[in-house]
Amino acid sequence: MSFLPSWRPGPARDAITSFLDESLALPADQRVAVLDNDGTLWCEKPNYVQYDFLVRTLHAAVEHDPGLGERAEYRALLDGDRATLGELGLQRVALALLELCAGWTPDEFTGRVRDFMAQEKHPGRGAPYPRMVYQPMLELLEALHGSGFDVFIVTGGGTEFVRAVSRELYGVRPDDVVGTLVEYHHEQHGDGPALVRTAQAQAEVNEGWAKVEHIQTQLGRRPIFAAGNSAGDREMLEYARAAGTPSLAVLIDHDDAEREYAYASAAVTLTDTEPITATAHRLGWTVVSMRDDWSTVFPA
Amino acid sequence: MSFLPSWRPGPARDAITSFLDESLALPADQRVAVLDNDGTLWCEKPNYVQYDFLVRTLHAAVEHDPGLGERAEYRALLDGDRATLGELGLQRVALALLELCAGWTPDEFTGRVRDFMAQEKHPGRGAPYPRMVYQPMLELLEALHGSGFDVFIVTGGGTEFVRAVSRELYGVRPDDVVGTLVEYHHEQHGDGPALVRTAQAQAEVNEGWAKVEHIQTQLGRRPIFAAGNSAGDREMLEYARAAGTPSLAVLIDHDDAEREYAYASAAVTLTDTEPITATAHRLGWTVVSMRDDWSTVFPA
Repeated sequence: MSFLPSWRPGPARDAITSFLDESLALPADQRVAVLDNDGTLWCEKPNYVQYDFLVRTLHAAVEHDPGLGERAEYRALLDGDRATLGELGLQRVALALLELCAGWTPDEFTGRVRDFMAQEKHPGRGAPYPRMVYQPMLELLEALHGSGFDVFIVTGGGTEFVRAVSRELYGVRPDDVVGTLVEYHHEQHGDGPALVRTAQAQAEVNEGWAKVEHIQTQLGRRPIFAAGNSAGDREMLEYARAAGTPSLAVLIDHDDAEREYAYASAAVTLTDTEPITATAHRLGWTVVSMRDDWSTVFPA
Repeated sequence: MSFLPSWRPGPARDAITSFLDESLALPADQRVAVLDNDGTLWCEKPNYVQYDFLVRTLHAAVEHDPGLGERAEYRALLDGDRATLGELGLQRVALALLELCAGWTPDEFTGRVRDFMAQEKHPGRGAPYPRMVYQPMLELLEALHGSGFDVFIVTGGGTEFVRAVSRELYGVRPDDVVGTLVEYHHEQHGDGPALVRTAQAQAEVNEGWAKVEHIQTQLGRRPIFAAGNSAGDREMLEYARAAGTPSLAVLIDHDDAEREYAYASAAVTLTDTEPITATAHRLGWTVVSMRDDWSTVFPA
């Protein structure tokens, strides 16, 4: 089998192979790779997968308790009322959805995520969700592992959501996922101590500088490889790129309307004054064109 | 080579071998082990190793800046003035010591910890610190790894302190250490983004219920094996023990004044009304007598 078979020959593929070759000379401890998830390893359009999961959870909850449908956030979601959702704002809607999982144990949450991923279909393409990962990125993960890298997923999404499927989808251990966390509270159950989810998100969403801080506090080594696709990955990519030689920062450009989606990733803060692709070119990152650099997007 | 050679035949060794045998039937995902560090994997008397490191750092700092010696906490430490240290309280003293590392980058901190561990000697026994780990626990770590366990260190000590030497001493990856964290702040250095330590500890010291919460948030799987030695490990041990069958909670009892130290581990909270060894017996944990169950304490 050829190396990175779904990557077309060109500068992006060359940059990756050169980087992997050079990194073989490094001590194992320095071979650390971090990758964003939404839009980098799997498709994030038309909605974040986690959002689809929570809306599915809402539908199931309303079946049992129709009164829930009276709450403004839930009503707008059930009606697909985009105007109201826009007025309420993503954060308020997301927090309302998180409340649906409050009281669940970690095992219960993991089980429901796995059921969702196994049973539901992606609304845009009708494929099972596990088929919405990017084949070339699976090959890149395999190449990183094969070159002795410790590979971590550093996501703005919920840690537990991604972790529930990280081993199956990506070969990444659950504890090697760093994301956004909810608070837990502890209860004494009949069979001993237990944790249950609250509706409270932990202070910091794992985007921007938080990704760099959490790489330090939860992983403790500086990455020399980072991949992302949005402004929320900027600091993480800069941090990896500045780690010395060799290092590689990879930005996925969603420019393939035919096979995936074409969109400029949204700015995360008001201070993002340029598209992240422009930042990438300016800072010497490796920009991956889905349209030009990938012969295949999704697994067969 | 025999299995667990430094463990004398007896109920503790039997419990461990039975547990390892039974766990082989489990899916890999469930084979998760967590171990405390201070007093469980390495000697914590007469002082925590990290405390020795910080006092050594203080001495070096005072050489460069004698004025530091005027601060009450530092004066008391330099004079070995136990009465004043008692009045000031461990927490205030510890926070003052942490200030000495503020402004250091993670690499600088790791480098200094490694230098300390390589160069300094344990004050009680004159041995290099890497020789103050417990030989039988190294064998237990090896047995856990050999049985396909993912092994994590869950310590009340500083995450970065333990992580700096976890691979060398225990064969545990830096990111597989969960401990107490400091806050970082970020700076733009000439060569790119950087993190530096602050003097601010993160909210929660990693003891008691915090250990259980951080096992969930940072590792994401429930352990079926836990080892500890103090009241700060109680919830973690209960959590592992209640995980189902097989599961094992191991408590190290420091009852060997001749070869190590004999002491009852301090209560962590005012609500601890019994010694942790009594809790262990009451809850059916495996109590390891250092005196009776270990043929060797420290590596040769």
